[in-house]
Amino acid sequence: VLVDRPEKLGRVQILNVHSRKIHLGADVDLETVAALTPGFTGADLANLVNEAALMATRRGGDEVTLADFTAAIERIVAGLEKRNRLLNPHEREVVAYHEMGHTLVALSLPGSDVVHKVSIIPRGIGSLGYTIQRPTEDRFLMTRQELENKMAVLLGGRAAETIVFGELSTGAADDLQKVTDIARSMVTRYGMSPELGQVTYERDTHNFLGSQTPTPPWNERSYSEETGREIDKVLKSVVDRAFARTVDLLKAKRDVLERGARQLLERETLDEADLAALLRPQLVPEPVQS
Amino acid sequence: VLVDRPEKLGRVQILNVHSRKIHLGADVDLETVAALTPGFTGADLANLVNEAALMATRRGGDEVTLADFTAAIERIVAGLEKRNRLLNPHEREVVAYHEMGHTLVALSLPGSDVVHKVSIIPRGIGSLGYTIQRPTEDRFLMTRQELENKMAVLLGGRAAETIVFGELSTGAADDLQKVTDIARSMVTRYGMSPELGQVTYERDTHNFLGSQTPTPPWNERSYSEETGREIDKVLKSVVDRAFARTVDLLKAKRDVLERGARQLLERETLDEADLAALLRPQLVPEPVQS
Amino acid sequence: VLVDRPEKLGRVQILNVHSRKIHLGADVDLETVAALTPGFTGADLANLVNEAALMATRRGGDEVTLADFTAAIERIVAGLEKRNRLLNPHEREVVAYHEMGHTLVALSLPGSDVVHKVSIIPRGIGSLGYTIQRPTEDRFLMTRQELENKMAVLLGGRAAETIVFGELSTGAADDLQKVTDIARSMVTRYGMSPELGQVTYERDTHNFLGSQTPTPPWNERSYSEETGREIDKVLKSVVDRAFARTVDLLKAKRDVLERGARQLLERETLDEADLAALLRPQLVPEPVQS
Amino acid sequence: VLVDRPEKLGRVQILNVHSRKIHLGADVDLETVAALTPGFTGADLANLVNEAALMATRRGGDEVTLADFTAAIERIVAGLEKRNRLLNPHEREVVAYHEMGHTLVALSLPGSDVVHKVSIIPRGIGSLGYTIQRPTEDRFLMTRQELENKMAVLLGGRAAETIVFGELSTGAADDLQKVTDIARSMVTRYGMSPELGQVTYERDTHNFLGSQTPTPPWNERSYSEETGREIDKVLKSVVDRAFARTVDLLKAKRDVLERGARQLLERETLDEADLAALLRPQLVPEPVQS
Amino acid sequence: VLVDRPEKLGRVQILNVHSRKIHLGADVDLETVAALTPGFTGADLANLVNEAALMATRRGGDEVTLADFTAAIERIVAGLEKRNRLLNPHEREVVAYHEMGHTLVALSLPGSDVVHKVSIIPRGIGSLGYTIQRPTEDRFLMTRQELENKMAVLLGGRAAETIVFGELSTGAADDLQKVTDIARSMVTRYGMSPELGQVTYERDTHNFLGSQTPTPPWNERSYSEETGREIDKVLKSVVDRAFARTVDLLKAKRDVLERGARQLLERETLDEADLAALLRPQLVPEPVQS
Amino acid sequence: VLVDRPEKLGRVQILNVHSRKIHLGADVDLETVAALTPGFTGADLANLVNEAALMATRRGGDEVTLADFTAAIERIVAGLEKRNRLLNPHEREVVAYHEMGHTLVALSLPGSDVVHKVSIIPRGIGSLGYTIQRPTEDRFLMTRQELENKMAVLLGGRAAETIVFGELSTGAADDLQKVTDIARSMVTRYGMSPELGQVTYERDTHNFLGSQTPTPPWNERSYSEETGREIDKVLKSVVDRAFARTVDLLKAKRDVLERGARQLLERETLDEADLAALLRPQLVPEPVQS
Repeated sequence: VLVDRPEKLGRVQILNVHSRKIHLGADVDLETVAALTPGFTGADLANLVNEAALMATRRGGDEVTLADFTAAIERIVAGLEKRNRLLNPHEREVVAYHEMGHTLVALSLPGSDVVHKVSIIPRGIGSLGYTIQRPTEDRFLMTRQELENKMAVLLGGRAAETIVFGELSTGAADDLQKVTDIARSMVTRYGMSPELGQVTYERDTHNFLGSQTPTPPWNERSYSEETGREIDKVLKSVVDRAFARTVDLLKAKRDVLERGARQLLERETLDEADLAALLRPQLVPEPVQS
Repeated sequence: VLVDRPEKLGRVQILNVHSRKIHLGADVDLETVAALTPGFTGADLANLVNEAALMATRRGGDEVTLADFTAAIERIVAGLEKRNRLLNPHEREVVAYHEMGHTLVALSLPGSDVVHKVSIIPRGIGSLGYTIQRPTEDRFLMTRQELENKMAVLLGGRAAETIVFGELSTGAADDLQKVTDIARSMVTRYGMSPELGQVTYERDTHNFLGSQTPTPPWNERSYSEETGREIDKVLKSVVDRAFARTVDLLKAKRDVLERGARQLLERETLDEADLAALLRPQLVPEPVQS
Repeated sequence: VLVDRPEKLGRVQILNVHSRKIHLGADVDLETVAALTPGFTGADLANLVNEAALMATRRGGDEVTLADFTAAIERIVAGLEKRNRLLNPHEREVVAYHEMGHTLVALSLPGSDVVHKVSIIPRGIGSLGYTIQRPTEDRFLMTRQELENKMAVLLGGRAAETIVFGELSTGAADDLQKVTDIARSMVTRYGMSPELGQVTYERDTHNFLGSQTPTPPWNERSYSEETGREIDKVLKSVVDRAFARTVDLLKAKRDVLERGARQLLERETLDEADLAALLRPQLVPEPVQS
Repeated sequence: VLVDRPEKLGRVQILNVHSRKIHLGADVDLETVAALTPGFTGADLANLVNEAALMATRRGGDEVTLADFTAAIERIVAGLEKRNRLLNPHEREVVAYHEMGHTLVALSLPGSDVVHKVSIIPRGIGSLGYTIQRPTEDRFLMTRQELENKMAVLLGGRAAETIVFGELSTGAADDLQKVTDIARSMVTRYGMSPELGQVTYERDTHNFLGSQTPTPPWNERSYSEETGREIDKVLKSVVDRAFARTVDLLKAKRDVLERGARQLLERETLDEADLAALLRPQLVPEPVQS
Repeated sequence: VLVDRPEKLGRVQILNVHSRKIHLGADVDLETVAALTPGFTGADLANLVNEAALMATRRGGDEVTLADFTAAIERIVAGLEKRNRLLNPHEREVVAYHEMGHTLVALSLPGSDVVHKVSIIPRGIGSLGYTIQRPTEDRFLMTRQELENKMAVLLGGRAAETIVFGELSTGAADDLQKVTDIARSMVTRYGMSPELGQVTYERDTHNFLGSQTPTPPWNERSYSEETGREIDKVLKSVVDRAFARTVDLLKAKRDVLERGARQLLERETLDEADLAALLRPQLVPEPVQS
Repeated sequence: VLVDRPEKLGRVQILNVHSRKIHLGADVDLETVAALTPGFTGADLANLVNEAALMATRRGGDEVTLADFTAAIERIVAGLEKRNRLLNPHEREVVAYHEMGHTLVALSLPGSDVVHKVSIIPRGIGSLGYTIQRPTEDRFLMTRQELENKMAVLLGGRAAETIVFGELSTGAADDLQKVTDIARSMVTRYGMSPELGQVTYERDTHNFLGSQTPTPPWNERSYSEETGREIDKVLKSVVDRAFARTVDLLKAKRDVLERGARQLLERETLDEADLAALLRPQLVPEPVQS
């Protein structure tokens, strides 16, 4: 069944209801919490408030702070921290550049969701690092340009690995899957490719607008082999272009990428303020002219 | 099972029966209500009368007016209003032009169903705006020309977006699906393409004549790959032509489109009278000749 | 399970048994009733006698007449009259020409079943008009020529629409499906196409000889894509030829078509005698030579 | 489960056991009865003895004769007589030539099973006539030549129709299906086509050696499309050749075909002796030389 | 579930256990019995000892001899003797040459399993003759050469038929199926074709090493049509080559083939000693020189 | 369901818990045991400790030594020893070179997991020999180079057979399957082929990082035939290159391969120390210069 997930305004209202019985810290703005939880149902939000309160109790606090909420969201979205998952130094370095790649692309493309946090602490099953974005608003429509930006953010990890290490790793498999899903929808459902026209080639219930439900295995299709080949080609060229663009973008900011990855390796996690500082022009001592 | 839905005359009779126990306002003509409810079963109509009576009670009225019936129909057909669904200003603008696109094409093509209401109030699950048409009569046969007009009305939304914003958005996905269904039926079931002849290539129980049942996932097919490719090509060219025609039509009425979208942004909803006024030639002060 | 439906002689015997308890009108010849009911099982015939008796009772008659039997057959075969189904004048005209097309082709091709009645009174679910043929005998074998004639009768509706209105409508969808089934069987099961030889390409339990059971969805197939393409091509050319022939036939009798359709629009239903009169050469006043 | 049907010797033994309690006529040789019942299980044979005894009782005989056995076999194999199935004279003529075609090819090809009876009395569901062959022995191996002869006998019906009427009818559909099955097995299971080699392309449990079980719908296949196309082509050419050969054979015996069909139309059924007489050279009065 | 069948050594041990309670004849070497029963489970071996004891009892012997074991194995592996299955003389001749073909190829190729017995006594369901080989040892690895030899032995039957009768019969269908399975595995699972490389194209649980379990219907496949076509071609050429080689081998030993088949027709069964004698150079009286 | 298997650190902790009640030998370092058990769940590790204790008891030891743990791991991973599985001398030789091939490639490629043991003692169902590697660390990311090395180790067996015997055997079937899985994932899931780009073509839950779960039958696919052909070609060329590289590597170390295989034939099993000795440069008496 199709669940009608609450919009941001609805989430604020639901959070308000569930927060009545707990002491909220002065720094907690439920609008911010709502912004971090697109796609959460009412039940998810109730659970979130409980988890945040638990976090506060565990650390002996008497108020539930924004940090408690953020930690609870991370736990729900990305799973438990897995500090036992000891990556070797090279793997850890690859992960740092990979996550910094996602983050830097998101920071660079106008209109991308705010990067709330980037981390190389392994979490949940299989994750080695993560980047959490915070949409400033729920989105209901996306343009082709916005979808292309979304693909660029997803490809930022692999692009960074390619630029820095000149090597491909298995770490981008999930990203490639999401990029392929977006490109496929652009071509087969949103009529965004001139070659294939304003025709629907596949159907599904999948959407890219803030939903965090797992993607269905594969879409139903209804076209001939030759049309299928055309779709494959256009889909590949859409992804190729997005990747080339992402590589160019990161190459142009190679120094920020390097600094960011270094900081991430040192501090494991960077938040919004850290990232803002990172992007600020560096004070470079002027070369003294002779 | 195949339900035998009542024709318009039958709907009038059914509405008469169910309305006996309520006070109908002077402005209620059950023929108009019947015209707005093609595809409703007897049970749907009984429900409609109840909903309309409830609307009247809620607003404290002592008669059930046509406005109550219209509101009840909108609620049944398009779902509850979702005023929490806060679109950003650009999204709202895109939706306004999109809906005005549908409406203007419907107003321009002879023989199209009357536009009863156009609105940018979000409703139900996922809808951002809607255009309600009122067939002046039930239809039992449609010509190729009429199906092409139906496709043009459906493509009006995307055509308006393209003309005004020069950008494609995800908002037309449902429209493209319906257009593809019509074009596919023209080619594979109605023998309307000279290239493919008077042969049936697919079968289903789907019809376009006033039915509001959801379309089945995909039709059963029985043809070779090469014939499938031919179908794909003809289908695409049917849709391409329909889109080009729709764009031309809206470009020629660009000023009405602009005025309509502006009004929609201001007033959220336009009814039949508003639309009639919109189409009336504007009094433009004659340029004074020197 | 495969039901062994009674032959005409068997139907006469069964009708005899069931008619013992009712007063048959003098005009009732059970042979004629049997001729109108190919494919009826024993149970269907028992039901028919009851329905006919009911018809007589309803109209206050004390004998069951042939008209009662005919009305009962129409009700069983085509469903209840749907006088609420109000077509608009143009639709009604299209239906009249469409039905007259079927009828006129049947009247013109030697060996076609006698046309017992043609009507534009809507009946059952979805039907807008109907032509009832009465086989003079049960048929057990059909030649290629006879199958082609059957296709021509089925295509007569659309051919008439094309000639008169120059437009294609959705009203021929069912006819095209039946034509496609016949052409497919000629090619894939009856070895009637020289290109594909005396080979069976598909299997089903479907037959065209007086059976009124619904056709199975699609046949099982066992051939390569390229052979499938050959089948598609031959099938299309068989249907194309049949359509061209039907159009030629109706063009040559355009005047009878016009007169017949006009009469049908006036009188809604024409019977065997009316059709015989229609075909009689018209007395045209000789132009006076000056 | 796979039933191990008794061989001829076994059938004689089983018939012996079941016949102990009945009076067998002097003309009954159980070897002959066993020869007419290849593929019968023990239960089928027990049933046969009962049916034959019943036949004798019905006709008031005090012994069970060979004719009783033959009638019982016909009833079991081909179904009840359907004397109500009144074919029109042309259909009856077509059936007579069709059955005579099967019979004459069987009589002409060395090594074919003896034709025990040919008849145009309709029987069972759908059958319009039948030819019963009596293998002189059970067969366990068949050569390519023997399979080709089997195809020729099956195609004899359609070949006769083509020669005599110059028209194709629907009556050969079952024959074509059986011919296609044999040709497909030659190509895909028996390695009998040089083009496709000694490779197995399909598998089934189907056999042509005296079995009367219904053929399975379609075989499982495991090959590429292009190989499938090659199979289609070789299969068609095998059937084309078999048909051409059958036509030639019947053309060369046109006079016997005509005489046989005439006799069949007059007498409805011909037995082994009648057929032997038919084949005997005709005494034609010598033309007197002037 | 995957049964772990005992190796030869294990079989000897199991046979020892089960034979404790019976009197074994002096000629019984359980190693030989174990060699004749590759693929037997513990339960199968227990059953074998019982069957062999039963054989001894039936013939009134007081010891269980090797002949009893051999007879019990034949009954288990090939089914009951079917002496009722009376082949005609030509069929019997074909079977004799066919079986002698298998046997002679097995005797001629170095490394083939010893032929323990060849027979033309029909057995079980459908078998007309059989050749029983006795591996001198269990095999765990097979080379390409050994698989090719295995194919040659399987093709020996048809090759003999072709050479002697110049005709193909249906009798080789099972052999062709097994040959196709081996060739397909060489190409798709064992990486033995240079054209297709060291890639796995199909997967199954099937093995050729002494297993007597029935082959699964068809393997799962995962490749494109064009690759499938390549596989078909290579597979066919592997089988073609194997067949040509087998024909050459038998042609070169035509005289032994003839003598062997003659002996088989006379004596129905030949054992290891008979075959050794058959292969011994014949004493041909020297032609006397003049 | 997706099991979250413990990382190495977690395995050490779990082993610690389960080992509390047993006497560990002085030579047991639980870190080493953890390194040998990647992919083991908590339950597997508990079972391992029990099995190792049982081993100690059986051999009458009062401490559980590292050898007990190793033996227990071998039994769990590779199954029971099957000393009844008597290979013939040639098969045994092939197996020795095959296993030595795997081992030598693993020893030669930088970054490969340490070879803990290589053996030609048959174990479990179907295995004829085995090579156990010990990852020095859990791995979470793999580069293209590392995947290629993994393929080379897997192909080492067949490469050795080819070099030494010039013949292909069935023994590499499992290796080829694993190599194909890796190559397929590189191409269709990890975006590692320039020809096919950063697009996901198949999806599964399969991973190569230390997991010992059986591979799923085949992946779900979503692409046209022509794209499928491209994938087939790239996949084959990836495997071809890996095989050529492996052959070159082993040819260059032919002497070590020979010595290793000889030692394996003599001693059945070689451990880490034996292999280190094997690789040490041989003291070859200098040829005396004349």
